[in-house]
This record gives sequence, structure tokens and C-alpha cells, in this order.
Amino acid sequence: MNLTHIEHLGIAVKELAPAIEYYEKLLGQKCYSIEEVTDQKVRTAFFKVGSTKIELLEPTSEDSPIAKYLEKNPHGGVHHVAFCTDSVQTALGEAEALGIQLIDKTPRRGAEGLNIAFLHPKSTYGVLTEICEVPK
Amino acid sequence: MNLTHIEHLGIAVKELAPAIEYYEKLLGQKCYSIEEVTDQKVRTAFFKVGSTKIELLEPTSEDSPIAKYLEKNPHGGVHHVAFCTDSVQTALGEAEALGIQLIDKTPRRGAEGLNIAFLHPKSTYGVLTEICEVPK
Repeated sequence: MNLTHIEHLGIAVKELAPAIEYYEKLLGQKCYSIEEVTDQKVRTAFFKVGSTKIELLEPTSEDSPIAKYLEKNPHGGVHHVAFCTDSVQTALGEAEALGIQLIDKTPRRGAEGLNIAFLHPKSTYGVLTEICEVPK
Repeated sequence: MNLTHIEHLGIAVKELAPAIEYYEKLLGQKCYSIEEVTDQKVRTAFFKVGSTKIELLEPTSEDSPIAKYLEKNPHGGVHHVAFCTDSVQTALGEAEALGIQLIDKTPRRGAEGLNIAFLHPKSTYGVLTEICEVPK
């Protein structure tokens, strides 16, 4: 698969505000965007370091995937790793041909207007893996 | 702190061989290095995507930090996130001044000859965070 770089790391946090404050100190920069992704039941906050974004994820509902992650990992942690590609649809076809189990068979819209799809952690050695593209 | 990019993601795996095979498929490239880090009781395998390395970590002993991680996360997962900087010693001083708890007060030698130090996940919102530099 043609994956150019790690587009972002999705990091689950209980509450955005103190985590934003911490990453502002760590990275010496201000959070550049806060966005609610209704579909995923999360509020997100973004930073960028090199070519990779840090996407903090706070659940907005008890049945958010992030709320479920936080039940198992109450201190938070890396929820998913997102790789950038030119075409998510092509990458999904390649992944399926390679025997990788898909969560999404077709791309859907994610935070920051990206087209995204998830691979199943069952076939990715425990790392929830996202493939994403900047729409043309 | 002056962190230029994500140098690597440390990913815990039970066994290197099948995980290497998976990442070779996912990233369309061969693992470029396998190294044992005695100090950390791990065997590591490396890939590079954009400016970030994927460092697979297999425990070589039951008391390896990776073995402990795998007890809690039997399928594996992202064990740590490593940011690159010019000077780990300077970054550690800055982190301490910002109230971030340190695991290492001074840099030590990590995989690939890097100087590294870890920040404590208690003060990093659950993400075990490494700071590293390429030695001059």
C-alpha cells in the first residue's frame, strides 16, 4: 500500500481542557482547531508536529467509541494511528486483497474534512489503524 | 519545548515475525533493521513511513516493560510515542520546569543509537512519551 506518512495520532482523553493545556506546554504551540465530530461522538483538538497531527479525542456521549476506550484505559492513551494515502478507496481494495479485515468498506468523512476508513484491530496486531486522504 | 517531529511509534507485539509480515504488507516495504535492546529487554524491528519510524517491540523476558504492557493489552498496541528534539537534556530541563514528571532525569542510549528519555505517563495523559535525539 502507498502510505506516505502518519497523518495523525488519535489520542483518547477524558477531558479536552487539561489535555490541551498539557500538549500546548509539551509542543510549545497553541491548539489550532477544536471540532465536534457528531458521527464519532467526540470533540477533537488538533496540534501539528512535523507532518503529523495530534488529534485529542474527548467523548461526547457514553456510547462513544472513545468512552469505551477510556473504560479500559482510564488514563487515556493512543486510540488510533492514521496513515495518509492518495486514495483511501484504492488502499481499502489493496488491504482487502492482502487479507486485512476492514471496518469500513468505503471511505467516510472524518474530522478536518478528510476521507477516512478504519482497518480492524483484529488483523492489525492491536493497533486500530485509519487510512485517510485529503479530498481532491 | 522544541520537538520537531514524531521520531517513532513504539508498538508492542507478542511475536515479531507475524507483525513484521503484516507491516511489510501494510507499508509495502521491507523491515530495514532488527535489533535487540538488552537494557529494555526487547527485540525491535524498524520500518519508516514519512519522517516517522514504526518500532515493533517484542519482549525478550517476562519482566520486560513490553511483557507487562502485553499482560494488560494482549493483542498489542501503541506502547509509546517518541518526539525528536535537538537536545534531550535541554528538553528534560524544560519538561521539569513545566511540571511534567520525568522517568529519566538524564538521557540514556536507546535503539538505533539515539539518546532517549521518557516522561511519566502520569503527567502525560496516559501516553508514555519519549524524547529523543540523534547524537552529534
